Amino acid sequence: MSTTNISDDQSKREEELVHAVIASFEKTSNPRLREVMQKLVQHLHNFVRDVRLGESEWGSMIDFLTAVGHMTDERRQEFILLSDVLGISMQTVAVNNEASGSATEATVFGPFFVKNAPPIKIGGDITGGAPGQLCWVEGTVRDTQGNPIGGARIEVWEADDDGLYDVQYADGRVAGRAHLYADPKGKYSFWGLTPTPYPIPHDGPVGMLLEATGRSPMRAAHLHFMVTALHKRKLITHIFVAGDDLLISDSVFGVKESLIKHFDIQRGDTPTPDGRDVGGLPWSRTRFDIVLAPA
Amino acid sequence: MSTTNISDDQSKREEELVHAVIASFEKTSNPRLREVMQKLVQHLHNFVRDVRLGESEWGSMIDFLTAVGHMTDERRQEFILLSDVLGISMQTVAVNNEASGSATEATVFGPFFVKNAPPIKIGGDITGGAPGQLCWVEGTVRDTQGNPIGGARIEVWEADDDGLYDVQYADGRVAGRAHLYADPKGKYSFWGLTPTPYPIPHDGPVGMLLEATGRSPMRAAHLHFMVTALHKRKLITHIFVAGDDLLISDSVFGVKESLIKHFDIQRGDTPTPDGRDVGGLPWSRTRFDIVLAPA
Ligand SMILES: [Fe+2]
Ligand SMILES: [Fe+2]
Repeated sequence: MSTTNISDDQSKREEELVHAVIASFEKTSNPRLREVMQKLVQHLHNFVRDVRLGESEWGSMIDFLTAVGHMTDERRQEFILLSDVLGISMQTVAVNNEASGSATEATVFGPFFVKNAPPIKIGGDITGGAPGQLCWVEGTVRDTQGNPIGGARIEVWEADDDGLYDVQYADGRVAGRAHLYADPKGKYSFWGLTPTPYPIPHDGPVGMLLEATGRSPMRAAHLHFMVTALHKRKLITHIFVAGDDLLISDSVFGVKESLIKHFDIQRGDTPTPDGRDVGGLPWSRTRFDIVLAPA
Repeated sequence: MSTTNISDDQSKREEELVHAVIASFEKTSNPRLREVMQKLVQHLHNFVRDVRLGESEWGSMIDFLTAVGHMTDERRQEFILLSDVLGISMQTVAVNNEASGSATEATVFGPFFVKNAPPIKIGGDITGGAPGQLCWVEGTVRDTQGNPIGGARIEVWEADDDGLYDVQYADGRVAGRAHLYADPKGKYSFWGLTPTPYPIPHDGPVGMLLEATGRSPMRAAHLHFMVTALHKRKLITHIFVAGDDLLISDSVFGVKESLIKHFDIQRGDTPTPDGRDVGGLPWSRTRFDIVLAPA
């Protein structure tokens, strides 16, 4: 920890305090808890010393955390939003999904996954009647050696054209989500919706922080995937839409270059891959080839 | 940020994420807010990367902060307690009260100060009938050149023999607190109580953290001072009792070697400095010479 413009005396006082706090956790019986707490102390004190945190700034931080706590209930998790907009959620994903050869990169899970989404067959429809432009999604699931992973379970979920997930409606609808299994050659496909952007909830203290710092609450348009297979690392990721203006300012830092895909818009009279009648409306298609890391 | 056992690829991914988050705050119009947020991001990401924070550990932290938020209301500030037991409050005090020659060291303010405590004359009594052993406190207030600071305002407050401050009783009593002014030679004195230890509130999530980490919630016995004078830095501090077992494990890291004072126990028949009749009960006396830094 280097801090400028402070005397050796002062620096010594500050360091002694850090050591005393670290030492206070020495009797923690769980060694991992001890390590995490001691390093948390080290890094938080580094922050306070580095910015020379003012007493009124400390007070503002206490007030902010209090507001975040009071915003949080069973339906709204403002601490997760805070973690998201500080990139902490995404950094935790990065740390727990280390680069592994050609394996597909992970990104944030988000709050809108639902267990037991409806099953569909390959080529089936996940939209459940949600409004939006139809989108044909296809690809393969393979391991890092290129072998197909037949039977890989693929969960997909996405917002509708209004930027809302089914669970955000009060009517109990199930739409824009499903699960399917890759075929023996690792191939999969389904009909979904061309993803559209939406804001994270921003009517609370985290929204005020974004506002005060000139940041947007918008997420880049995306389609969620969770892919699982025996002896493979679970993959939680999204794909993003090439050309989306929001790719460079995704509010939760979920975008990875490798996850940006072309969604090719088709005229309404273009024949569909499975002969589906799209009623003469434009539709899109994209390809997402998935590579799972070893477990 | 150095992390061991990770590939260059992985390290690059993690660093790129940190840079992206820092860059997202670039448009913050308030330059100090920008600096604080960018450094907060840097240090929090250093923590996550350093401990290789697990996803379930991240979840436990979210749950813990949620519990802290839900414990906090107008009467209970669990975030301040958390800041206290992590030494963050004390480090903030350290950073804002830099070593200045012989100036008396500051320590944590605590939650029990009350404005407009009763006035007393020099040699007066602050106890207000609070139970405990009487203690004669005397000393001087001087500047760092040794000049007396006549008229310095001295606020003092302390817990009673049961470890409780007056405001912790439901009956509205005012006891164990007062203010007085140093005389033209900078001298002051008053009757208080020999300080006794007390625990910080530990029936909430912060108490659970202390328990899980083998730490005590007890504060070393102390007597609070706040001393103000024109053109001098405000001093908020305590004095502690030499020989107190808790000096080495104060739950909020408030103890400074220079603030530990001898409280000399006197027999009940020892004449008091001002002739007060102590009813034959033992009493104590201590000396605290205060030096104020320039503003
Ligand atoms: Fe999403
Ligand atoms: Fe206290």
